[in-house]
Amino acid sequence: MSSRRDFLRGAAALGAGMVARAAAAIPEAPVRASAGTEPPPPPAAGRPYRPVVTLNGWSLPWRMNDGWKEFHLVAEPVVREFAPGMTAHLWGYNGQSPGPTIEAVEGDRVRIFVTNRLPEHTSVHWHGMLLPSGMDGVGGLTQPHVPPGKTFVYEFELRRPGSFMYHPHSDEMVQMAMGMMGFFVVHPRDARRLRADRDFVFLAAAYDIDPGTRTPRVSEMTDFNMWTWNSRVFPGIDPLVARSGDRVRIRIGNLTMTNHPIHLHGHAFEVTGTDGGWVPRGARWPEVTVDVPVGAMRAIEFDAVAGDWALHCHKSHHAMNAMGHGVPNMIGVPHDDIAGRIGKMIPGYMSMGASGMAGMSEMQMPLPDNTLPMMSGQGPFGALEMGGMFSVLKVRDDVAPGDYSDPGWFRHPPGTVAREWKG
Amino acid sequence: MSSRRDFLRGAAALGAGMVARAAAAIPEAPVRASAGTEPPPPPAAGRPYRPVVTLNGWSLPWRMNDGWKEFHLVAEPVVREFAPGMTAHLWGYNGQSPGPTIEAVEGDRVRIFVTNRLPEHTSVHWHGMLLPSGMDGVGGLTQPHVPPGKTFVYEFELRRPGSFMYHPHSDEMVQMAMGMMGFFVVHPRDARRLRADRDFVFLAAAYDIDPGTRTPRVSEMTDFNMWTWNSRVFPGIDPLVARSGDRVRIRIGNLTMTNHPIHLHGHAFEVTGTDGGWVPRGARWPEVTVDVPVGAMRAIEFDAVAGDWALHCHKSHHAMNAMGHGVPNMIGVPHDDIAGRIGKMIPGYMSMGASGMAGMSEMQMPLPDNTLPMMSGQGPFGALEMGGMFSVLKVRDDVAPGDYSDPGWFRHPPGTVAREWKG
Amino acid sequence: MSSRRDFLRGAAALGAGMVARAAAAIPEAPVRASAGTEPPPPPAAGRPYRPVVTLNGWSLPWRMNDGWKEFHLVAEPVVREFAPGMTAHLWGYNGQSPGPTIEAVEGDRVRIFVTNRLPEHTSVHWHGMLLPSGMDGVGGLTQPHVPPGKTFVYEFELRRPGSFMYHPHSDEMVQMAMGMMGFFVVHPRDARRLRADRDFVFLAAAYDIDPGTRTPRVSEMTDFNMWTWNSRVFPGIDPLVARSGDRVRIRIGNLTMTNHPIHLHGHAFEVTGTDGGWVPRGARWPEVTVDVPVGAMRAIEFDAVAGDWALHCHKSHHAMNAMGHGVPNMIGVPHDDIAGRIGKMIPGYMSMGASGMAGMSEMQMPLPDNTLPMMSGQGPFGALEMGGMFSVLKVRDDVAPGDYSDPGWFRHPPGTVAREWKG
Repeated sequence: MSSRRDFLRGAAALGAGMVARAAAAIPEAPVRASAGTEPPPPPAAGRPYRPVVTLNGWSLPWRMNDGWKEFHLVAEPVVREFAPGMTAHLWGYNGQSPGPTIEAVEGDRVRIFVTNRLPEHTSVHWHGMLLPSGMDGVGGLTQPHVPPGKTFVYEFELRRPGSFMYHPHSDEMVQMAMGMMGFFVVHPRDARRLRADRDFVFLAAAYDIDPGTRTPRVSEMTDFNMWTWNSRVFPGIDPLVARSGDRVRIRIGNLTMTNHPIHLHGHAFEVTGTDGGWVPRGARWPEVTVDVPVGAMRAIEFDAVAGDWALHCHKSHHAMNAMGHGVPNMIGVPHDDIAGRIGKMIPGYMSMGASGMAGMSEMQMPLPDNTLPMMSGQGPFGALEMGGMFSVLKVRDDVAPGDYSDPGWFRHPPGTVAREWKG
Repeated sequence: MSSRRDFLRGAAALGAGMVARAAAAIPEAPVRASAGTEPPPPPAAGRPYRPVVTLNGWSLPWRMNDGWKEFHLVAEPVVREFAPGMTAHLWGYNGQSPGPTIEAVEGDRVRIFVTNRLPEHTSVHWHGMLLPSGMDGVGGLTQPHVPPGKTFVYEFELRRPGSFMYHPHSDEMVQMAMGMMGFFVVHPRDARRLRADRDFVFLAAAYDIDPGTRTPRVSEMTDFNMWTWNSRVFPGIDPLVARSGDRVRIRIGNLTMTNHPIHLHGHAFEVTGTDGGWVPRGARWPEVTVDVPVGAMRAIEFDAVAGDWALHCHKSHHAMNAMGHGVPNMIGVPHDDIAGRIGKMIPGYMSMGASGMAGMSEMQMPLPDNTLPMMSGQGPFGALEMGGMFSVLKVRDDVAPGDYSDPGWFRHPPGTVAREWKG
Repeated sequence: MSSRRDFLRGAAALGAGMVARAAAAIPEAPVRASAGTEPPPPPAAGRPYRPVVTLNGWSLPWRMNDGWKEFHLVAEPVVREFAPGMTAHLWGYNGQSPGPTIEAVEGDRVRIFVTNRLPEHTSVHWHGMLLPSGMDGVGGLTQPHVPPGKTFVYEFELRRPGSFMYHPHSDEMVQMAMGMMGFFVVHPRDARRLRADRDFVFLAAAYDIDPGTRTPRVSEMTDFNMWTWNSRVFPGIDPLVARSGDRVRIRIGNLTMTNHPIHLHGHAFEVTGTDGGWVPRGARWPEVTVDVPVGAMRAIEFDAVAGDWALHCHKSHHAMNAMGHGVPNMIGVPHDDIAGRIGKMIPGYMSMGASGMAGMSEMQMPLPDNTLPMMSGQGPFGALEMGGMFSVLKVRDDVAPGDYSDPGWFRHPPGTVAREWKG
């Protein structure tokens, strides 16, 4: 199996000369080695805005240059930890997949340098943006593909606030299946508009990585085994932390091959925005599950209620990790004896499930190298038995503004937990 | 093959002691042996409401106890008839899958006893409800999982009217794939609000049961072969009966792994509600097909027009029964000779389809034990050639309120049926 | 492999006698041999309307007969070119799949003759229409199936303007999987209402045709390899041409087995209609991607902006042609040596993809007979690397009304194309 070092070596070599040459005039391209959530500080310069929080991600710093906000994205192979115990060899930007979130303000003029350190050409499409046709980033159609080792420059004005994405439009199927994507938030010029106390963003991505391997199978169309938010799976996804009564916005983009119905417990919310703009107040529907289409963005908003509230894709296989498929259903079939006999023929064979699969998250299964248990996670009351696209919205009375650190588990007031009945 | 008796025996033994002990103080847990539609009577006590009709199901009786409405759900293995000729070994509640519909009124305080007679632990999540975090039913997160043989108690107040579901949040993928789910309707406090003359409810569930077997493969993610409404398939699904001019509401929940676009013939309707609440009048879209996302609920409403109107999922494989897959297309390929030669090698091989498959619903195919023909059903003008998620809305001028019995086929007035042209 | 002639011969023989007999009294059934886009002329008689443009299709001529508009559809085997280099043996209407678009006006009384030249029975359901139950076209339920060789007559009044479909409701799964479908547009009685300068229509259909064969596998449920608009794939799909500032409407119907999120670059649009009617202005959402459910119709509208704008399904495999599946990911794996050794064992084996797949659209791969490269198309700046459900909206300042001819590639003003950075 190729190591992280082998995987990254070839690519890094490609762009090195170019970067050295460019150091003086091109903006810095910061990278991140960690997959932790990094709440960005409010902007030091330019128009004010309330920054978003990228789940298990970060926002890209920029510099001002003669009225332009300059950003620098580097497309490159990356090693992403999906959760402790599993890493994937992906393609991303600035050291991670997804790339860093770009944040700017309505009316800003942005100049985005894109350096290609991949072994093949690429381009960047600014999904949802109204911009000149030549800045649209469709390789072959609106610009030449960006060859390996080169840096291309996009320039456009941000004409409307909203929730956008960036992703390649070159060898698009492969490059998105390898993890190339990022969020792009345009804040309103008037910081009092569209206000939220907490504003979380993430992108849904799906991978098909055979247990024991590290590189996604890019030609898979339906049968993925890693359903991720920002290329993380539960229990590797950070909780979303809020204070009771906070107006919370969650913006979700989908770059998989199927709809994701994201379900939030304990709250009814409204869908307030798409990548096309903000939904007029009178046109909003009340929901507890938002079905996010592919290639689309949904912003939901609600007033936070104290508690630990599950937030997850409601397709039940999407809230599981690998190994959820191809397992025969042994419910009702006693098979201890069969298992013994098969075990003699197939070392490592394990029989399970004559009474369901709940035991799986408790037992110590020998797993292949570099994969995750199908059902995982520990809560205050035992095993959570989840994976994939699952996290917890943790709402507390005493969270400080700007504090996103994990407050631990909710302490239920007496009489508010389901209890055993004593006959 | 294990029999119904074998399947149920182990589980029933588990909870027996507990039940005996509890008989005095715990409310009755009625069961049903039949999969017929049971129009519930209006409530005898408590706030008045107009009951819903659960397609091929029933509503759970309750008792009042010191201001609380008490219900008793028993999670247990069940044998469900999908349609005459096929039964499935599922897990459900109170003798059936799905479980009985729970009906109550906005403002009611409900106490729901959940007894676990499954061979593994479970819990119940009240999907869409606004309630204290500890009553949310997420095993491990908001409460301990409910072990086999135990009874747990949930208590909460119904804060808003709407269309909700209940289902496990323990070993969730397996338990939902085994059929554990039910409808939960909260009627408005003011019985004149949100009024409908007829109000039907059902849940979409998908199973993958190999022909000749009875237990679903719970690890399947996409390739199901039994697409059900309330764990029934056409022609096992009862018709929806209404009187001309009736305001009809149909509430549809989806606990499968894919969207179901439910298409109604002959009417344009509005989507009036979700599991998040009621859609404001000005935000409603006119539709003839409602795409019900996974983990979501849609209520549609229309004024009934006389006739026999197909109601079905528009994904054409979902309106078929098993055996619709893996069949090679022989259209245009004469293959009688080939079939003969293959038949000598593979007993039971049947060639079909050189001129389409319409012949299938007419011919007498030898089917494996415990499965259903792919295309089925007889109408007034011949074979219907459907299966799965298909039923007929039967609207007549002379149906009495409260009468849901099958009125037979529509008698078309002269000149309103497509007719052969005589040249 | 059977030839076009063999495929069509049997079927043509079926209906021949009937047609001869009918020639005097039945309206003409025009056919088309080409898959080109044929902008229809405005109506010569009857109520005025602004005709739609069927992408790679045409509208069916009609005649007036004593106050009725008479159309004649012939259901029959057809050979459809998906794109230059690949033809499919489908079933369709009047020489093509999809069938011709039917256009009429609110209030019109239409009489539609349907002649069956298929080898099995059929029927036509007028999807979305409000009509008498007997005209609804559900074989077995509302009428007898139409046997081979017979002509049936449907008569109904068009009660509301909108975007509808026609397709069989006999052996439905097979006949739709074989390509039987068409658009049905009802224009408003007042031609000033719902006005658009350009109004394009197409239907999404999916096929599973193994490379080297010509007939779809009709039992496939998820794993299609030909994702088409009007049974064409890129680069066989014509561009959509408009003048800057034009109000453009695109109506999209979906008769596949999955949602299609259709993404338009460079514009935010509104969803203005469904097959259920027109969305009230206050209920519309701004979008850049419209998720079209199965068995549903979406009309979108926007003001055209000059440029070349990609229009495509955002499920990335749907914007590819065949051969996108089952290919192992060789990214990061040097395999020239392995390829050589495999090549000795498997003639024709080709190794690819150690550095992505972008090279595929440039290299000359030996393809099997009658298939298309996975990634295809040439733009002004190089290979487009797309396929399937992809086309280009071409907006220019100098397009004349009624002119839909390809204007070539957009000439970007200086400074509006992403450019290489010189360090």
